[in-house]
Amino acid sequence: MISMSKGFLLIISGPAGTGKGTVCKELLKRNKDIVFSVSATTRQPRVGEVDGLNYYFVTKDKFESMIEKDEFLEYAYVHTNYYGTPKEFVMNQIEKGEIVLLEIDVQGALQVKKNFSEAVFIFLLPPTMEELKNRIINRGTETEEDINRRYENAFKELDFVGNYDYFVINDVVEDAVLDIEAIIKAEKLRVKRHSDIKNKVLKGGK
Amino acid sequence: MISMSKGFLLIISGPAGTGKGTVCKELLKRNKDIVFSVSATTRQPRVGEVDGLNYYFVTKDKFESMIEKDEFLEYAYVHTNYYGTPKEFVMNQIEKGEIVLLEIDVQGALQVKKNFSEAVFIFLLPPTMEELKNRIINRGTETEEDINRRYENAFKELDFVGNYDYFVINDVVEDAVLDIEAIIKAEKLRVKRHSDIKNKVLKGGK
Repeated sequence: MISMSKGFLLIISGPAGTGKGTVCKELLKRNKDIVFSVSATTRQPRVGEVDGLNYYFVTKDKFESMIEKDEFLEYAYVHTNYYGTPKEFVMNQIEKGEIVLLEIDVQGALQVKKNFSEAVFIFLLPPTMEELKNRIINRGTETEEDINRRYENAFKELDFVGNYDYFVINDVVEDAVLDIEAIIKAEKLRVKRHSDIKNKVLKGGK
Repeated sequence: MISMSKGFLLIISGPAGTGKGTVCKELLKRNKDIVFSVSATTRQPRVGEVDGLNYYFVTKDKFESMIEKDEFLEYAYVHTNYYGTPKEFVMNQIEKGEIVLLEIDVQGALQVKKNFSEAVFIFLLPPTMEELKNRIINRGTETEEDINRRYENAFKELDFVGNYDYFVINDVVEDAVLDIEAIIKAEKLRVKRHSDIKNKVLKGGK
């Protein structure tokens, strides 16, 4: 395999309950070369969380100054805290030829699409809406009102699948990961990711 | 796997000596669902060749009237005969949701690109130029002049890789086929090939 001139940003996204977290964890376990995009946040670190590994923990002032300098691919204010994806880390890794994985909700992915449309966008789907509801219920931490709100929201968010490049149905996690691995393999073979294929072939021989 | 609303035309192309024929044969053997695009020609059938299977054998008048009616995705006049890819067969199969494979030289692929740019274009590369020369020599049927001409031609044709979507290096045939299978799997997961993903998910359940 000829190595890419530049890597790419791989967005794995979808409504709550589609299993983004589980799928991304399995994908990273099987593909040690994929770099996970670390988010910045203003919330306090929880026990065991490491700065630069789980999150970049920054102050509210710092975060807002980063917003002003357009240093985020996307960000959101949730409850009382900011969360965002710093551009610099992602771009540096891509320049080095790495594949950077960003696990993100639908609203966040749509923001990234505006700022960096050349990323590869994958929409994770539940096998059925029934199963989506079961998964939301089985988290077991939410009230019925919360469950219904999340379900309604997921239902609406399915409309945004048209803004993505690919979709993957997460019925069996291993199959979803195999689908994503095929997408990654194909994207690595894209001519546009290789600047001097002819010379690379020539270098191999005569 | 949700089935595609429409199939697609898969172009496997590259200079002489890159092993298009061998790769396509192996790909078809392993994937019985891929439909091979049958060319039309004005040359006489050879012993054992079946009309509609190996080629559509047509008269020169018929071929020229098809050219006038713009019924080819591409065609060429080689020595004393015409060869071409009839649009109708390809388009009918794609409408039915099939993947149609067209094995074709670089000039032909560039013509298809002009007429039907939504096809998926794969450029087959030799592992090295040395190996390409060996393969051309090992056909054993050509004079040294022919070999050199073919080699020079292949060298020039590498410049057109930029017009393709993907490239695949044909070092070991099985690996090249696995690369192409990953591309096919990814292309099937493209959102644009599915017109009503949301409804299909809904149909599955609630």
